[in-house]
Amino acid sequence: MSIHAYGAHAGDQPLESMTITRRAPGPHDIQIDIAYCGVCHSDLHQVRSEWAGTLYPCVPGHEIVGRVSAVGDHVSGFKSGDLVGVGCIVDSCQHCEECDAGLENYCDGMVGTYNGATADEPGHTLGGYSQQIVVHERYVLRIRHPEAQLAAVAPLLCAGITTYSPLRHWGVSTGKKVGVVGIGGLGHMGIKLAAAMGAHVVAFTTSESKRDAARALGAHEVVVSRNEDEMAAHAKSLDFILNTVAAPHDLDPFFALLKRDGTMTLVGAPATPHPSPDVFNLITKRRSLAGSMIGGIPETQEMLDFCADHDIVADIEMIRADQINDAYERMLKGDVKYRFVMDITSMAT
Amino acid sequence: MSIHAYGAHAGDQPLESMTITRRAPGPHDIQIDIAYCGVCHSDLHQVRSEWAGTLYPCVPGHEIVGRVSAVGDHVSGFKSGDLVGVGCIVDSCQHCEECDAGLENYCDGMVGTYNGATADEPGHTLGGYSQQIVVHERYVLRIRHPEAQLAAVAPLLCAGITTYSPLRHWGVSTGKKVGVVGIGGLGHMGIKLAAAMGAHVVAFTTSESKRDAARALGAHEVVVSRNEDEMAAHAKSLDFILNTVAAPHDLDPFFALLKRDGTMTLVGAPATPHPSPDVFNLITKRRSLAGSMIGGIPETQEMLDFCADHDIVADIEMIRADQINDAYERMLKGDVKYRFVMDITSMAT
Repeated sequence: MSIHAYGAHAGDQPLESMTITRRAPGPHDIQIDIAYCGVCHSDLHQVRSEWAGTLYPCVPGHEIVGRVSAVGDHVSGFKSGDLVGVGCIVDSCQHCEECDAGLENYCDGMVGTYNGATADEPGHTLGGYSQQIVVHERYVLRIRHPEAQLAAVAPLLCAGITTYSPLRHWGVSTGKKVGVVGIGGLGHMGIKLAAAMGAHVVAFTTSESKRDAARALGAHEVVVSRNEDEMAAHAKSLDFILNTVAAPHDLDPFFALLKRDGTMTLVGAPATPHPSPDVFNLITKRRSLAGSMIGGIPETQEMLDFCADHDIVADIEMIRADQINDAYERMLKGDVKYRFVMDITSMAT
Repeated sequence: MSIHAYGAHAGDQPLESMTITRRAPGPHDIQIDIAYCGVCHSDLHQVRSEWAGTLYPCVPGHEIVGRVSAVGDHVSGFKSGDLVGVGCIVDSCQHCEECDAGLENYCDGMVGTYNGATADEPGHTLGGYSQQIVVHERYVLRIRHPEAQLAAVAPLLCAGITTYSPLRHWGVSTGKKVGVVGIGGLGHMGIKLAAAMGAHVVAFTTSESKRDAARALGAHEVVVSRNEDEMAAHAKSLDFILNTVAAPHDLDPFFALLKRDGTMTLVGAPATPHPSPDVFNLITKRRSLAGSMIGGIPETQEMLDFCADHDIVADIEMIRADQINDAYERMLKGDVKYRFVMDITSMAT
């Protein structure tokens, strides 16, 4: 089926309206009429060819929410009209150790929602800045939030699971003191989720101006990381740090805040490397630097259900599809609280 | 008591014979007549002032074995004539969370066997290149190996525990595939210990000439890390990597060998940083880079007992005290298999 989408024909060109096709639903497929799609920093990196290997035309978007409009013959768990979501993953090998463990995000054959390998036209996957998507049922999530919150649920599909998964994996819970570095699309979700998990949350920002906002999101304490005294007050006290900042920055001052056996996990990948961490900081307290990438499908469902139970959604600013290029420019300046979401009904019909 | 020792009066001077004093044993102290002391790379760094804060005169040595020659009034667990060892730690605060957990190595008040704070003359601790040492009983280890092996037990007190502790902490056991990077003083112990723990051990070296030696130490496979094909054969297959190389080197090729959720732990601290690791390597498989520093006293005893049970000692080359400066030069060239041990009876009496 031919549908409208927004994408780019080359890395140095703006996004524009285009027409793409979607396959007819196969036996295990779900066809989704997309209502909203969140705007992730990865979208910008990929569409501008800042990461290697972007294929064009490129239609970004992997924070997809909408309504089922058709299901394949063998689909039993979903029906037309259901509110559903699709995140960063639309396929994987389905038989490796990772897939068997529900960690499709770490499968070597994981297929991204855009720029991934597919037999569909045009030979690579096209994302959620589009009116419709067809996805194997395994990668479709149920949404239990009220429909009125649907737009604000969209960012949970990437920003939500990207922060939820490491918080869970590294045991964040009541009694733990957790740092969240960066208060943007990812960080604002990290604060909300860690607080809902019962942790004492310390938010770290470079901006004095974000202090009140971080508290409003649920942070119990806010530290402006340029202030050495404020930093020193938390020395060796954090069980875990979720570092959401993709821009290259000095990691050492944060390691110094971790307790013995503490871990700092990076969920952003910088375009150029962070300054090399001081190994003494790791060795002297058996600390770890780790990375985490989105989350598996079962955990994404768990996260959505957790958010529904705790009335958690993202803080969003709605845009029309034709505002996407301006939104990217604002995103680069950090001028969004905290996630743009594209209203797909704004696309030409 | 006045005894002979070997040490340096300044960072740019060779080690030479000197006289030092030891305190009379207090109620909880054990006086040890030192038989042998291992020669650790840290000794060289410290005595040459390559690490900050070296105090002079500096008497290195923290791989100490010998025989109890006197005990304080309140000591019940040791008696004169016992074979004992002292490692890198001779004091700690004894009341923090780390000390309570038997992790004195991570206590902020940990006192190193040399260059640490003490009320004793000359105001900093003096190490095991000396005829005698007086140490609180908490930091004295029992040696169950036959006395004939005593010299080869000495390096267990640092090289042994430094490798044993991370292998245990990160769950190395039967069924695990473990890499050991570097085949020197630390690495040769790592290979022996990991193999004795039941793991499948892959040794990594830059030297083709060390291939047979690594197998003889117990490695099941040996990889010359410059050979990309050999490295690629182990891609994503290792559960854990113990990296013993202190010289700055590219960590990324080793991360690529770790499975999902694998950890590479550094036990050497480079004088200048390693090249900054590629964050993608961490994120895409939830891998970790960690550090580990020696081990606590209970675990050091556990390691010594494990080694006694498994007939494990270090491979050593014995030197006289007056050969120490030459030994350092040879150590810098990697020209030792695999640890020098100083025969303390060679000191002037």
